[in-house]
Amino acid sequence: MRRRAFIGGLVAAGASGRVAWAQADPLPSWNDGAARRRILDFVARTTTPGHPDWVPVPERIATFDNDGTLWCEQPLYVQVQFAVDRVRSAAAQHPEWREREPFRSILADDRAGLAMIGEKGVLDIVVATHAGLTTEQFRQNVVEWLATARHPRFGRPYTDLVYQPMLELLALLRASQFKTFIVSGGGIDFMRPWTEKAYGIPPEQVVGSSGVTRYSLVAPDRPVLLKQDKVEFVDDGPGKPEGIDRFIGRRPVLAFGNSDGDQQMLEWTAAGPGARFMGLVHHTDAVREYAYDRQSPVGRLDKAWDEAVRRDWLVVDMKRDWKVVFPFELGR
Amino acid sequence: MRRRAFIGGLVAAGASGRVAWAQADPLPSWNDGAARRRILDFVARTTTPGHPDWVPVPERIATFDNDGTLWCEQPLYVQVQFAVDRVRSAAAQHPEWREREPFRSILADDRAGLAMIGEKGVLDIVVATHAGLTTEQFRQNVVEWLATARHPRFGRPYTDLVYQPMLELLALLRASQFKTFIVSGGGIDFMRPWTEKAYGIPPEQVVGSSGVTRYSLVAPDRPVLLKQDKVEFVDDGPGKPEGIDRFIGRRPVLAFGNSDGDQQMLEWTAAGPGARFMGLVHHTDAVREYAYDRQSPVGRLDKAWDEAVRRDWLVVDMKRDWKVVFPFELGR
Repeated sequence: MRRRAFIGGLVAAGASGRVAWAQADPLPSWNDGAARRRILDFVARTTTPGHPDWVPVPERIATFDNDGTLWCEQPLYVQVQFAVDRVRSAAAQHPEWREREPFRSILADDRAGLAMIGEKGVLDIVVATHAGLTTEQFRQNVVEWLATARHPRFGRPYTDLVYQPMLELLALLRASQFKTFIVSGGGIDFMRPWTEKAYGIPPEQVVGSSGVTRYSLVAPDRPVLLKQDKVEFVDDGPGKPEGIDRFIGRRPVLAFGNSDGDQQMLEWTAAGPGARFMGLVHHTDAVREYAYDRQSPVGRLDKAWDEAVRRDWLVVDMKRDWKVVFPFELGR
Repeated sequence: MRRRAFIGGLVAAGASGRVAWAQADPLPSWNDGAARRRILDFVARTTTPGHPDWVPVPERIATFDNDGTLWCEQPLYVQVQFAVDRVRSAAAQHPEWREREPFRSILADDRAGLAMIGEKGVLDIVVATHAGLTTEQFRQNVVEWLATARHPRFGRPYTDLVYQPMLELLALLRASQFKTFIVSGGGIDFMRPWTEKAYGIPPEQVVGSSGVTRYSLVAPDRPVLLKQDKVEFVDDGPGKPEGIDRFIGRRPVLAFGNSDGDQQMLEWTAAGPGARFMGLVHHTDAVREYAYDRQSPVGRLDKAWDEAVRRDWLVVDMKRDWKVVFPFELGR
């Protein structure tokens, strides 16, 4: 894949944390413009020894929202589509669902109703439909579902619908000795089976919403973790800085999101000392992807946008700033 | 060949600079014997390409209990001593504590009562005495306390009372591309301010018990995380595999503990496929440290010991297996 090609061109220059570019452009899918220049400038300043904005390597923490920031979240959060498919396949054993929201909307294929299901709503569904499974069975379900599910518009596996420019940004940061984390409202167990392959982000660097699990012995010396019918943590809105503090224990120096659910993560990142980078992806490209912001039930960008403008955080204009949206466009 | 593999990364492996071996032996503070040989054999097998027990680098996850496994936990868990000092300094504002346990024992200096305070009990105290503080204020309190507090028997800062042989094991594992984590019943916020310096383990690789925090704006654009008077998660016993799954999302291939609170972590580690290493530190050295096991109110080792013997997990005999216990012995 071409997205791997430029990574090979990056040469980490040892303990100083500087990066030598064997190839001229670490962000080939970003159009030349303010967004690209601000990113490159930030990375250069924070990784140049002696620069007043230099950041010690252990503190180079970068956090990224997932839905709408690293991969496509329209027309439904991918995890909602997963939950919908799980509800449909389990509906015969749950006649009571026909009367109860959000199950009623799902079984009636009420798309408008489905679009209103937020990160918390989908967590409720996932928790309800997976109680009693072991964590391993659940992950296997996710892997199997992703292998066959296709996006309704693009007709491709959901993991093809990651953003090429963001993959390049992740790789640039890692080559610059930043540690990259996902901090998502999505389910932690839904993401971990595939984020390492899709983004190069290992399970232990994924923070997300979760349900309670319980340790149990199913036979002598055979422990399992059973998923309980109870939400444990919602990693969205103010939950994001809380989750960052709980899981990572350090404040990020760079954070990227795309919706109001990311506002507090960006505020928390901005409030630290020294150089800071706060970014939002603004979905402005109805042709190559989707165009939505203040009115969208999925991934609404309203208050966070106003705050970004007021505080001069980067707002990426997908249509203007991205040469390519998805990796599969590179092969054309 | 095998030796050379160890030497590679060990030069700068210890964050504190205590572990820097120019010579062939990566475990110089371990006496030659079964414990040392089993560790070296496991590391060699899991890191030799082509060996049937070889483990891919991303899966090289090693988890360590803290109290009694990496540092001294007698005569009281260090965090209990911290909490005791906090309670005493805040007692004037809380007359109701004189009638309420465990505050009564603390204020009456009832050592027997204090020793009975478990990981959950200390968490209750810490949560009660720190509600309303920001996470940053709390960490500052920990740092300040550790700078002046001294161990009642050794007269040294608590961070001097880390186990030299375990520092060497941590460094050996990291040099062998294992990622080392702490998984402790102790408070996550109590550990994170000092584990990087003491063990070379960064905050994002520390799993522990926690209280709820809440995101709050104290002024425009000035967010804080406020500690609430509510326990969130107890990372002890069955909570350890639950915490490992939540925070790390992978099963360890090596786990080390010292008490019954670590039993489920070892069981969970043992239940995975391929090569596994489960270890317990048995405190057998009343002269250099302490001798305790089945009857001890602090760090009881009873059921986990029986299981370790039955399943042939390593039980380190501190007196027999460790040439040196604490780093300060090296300077003599």
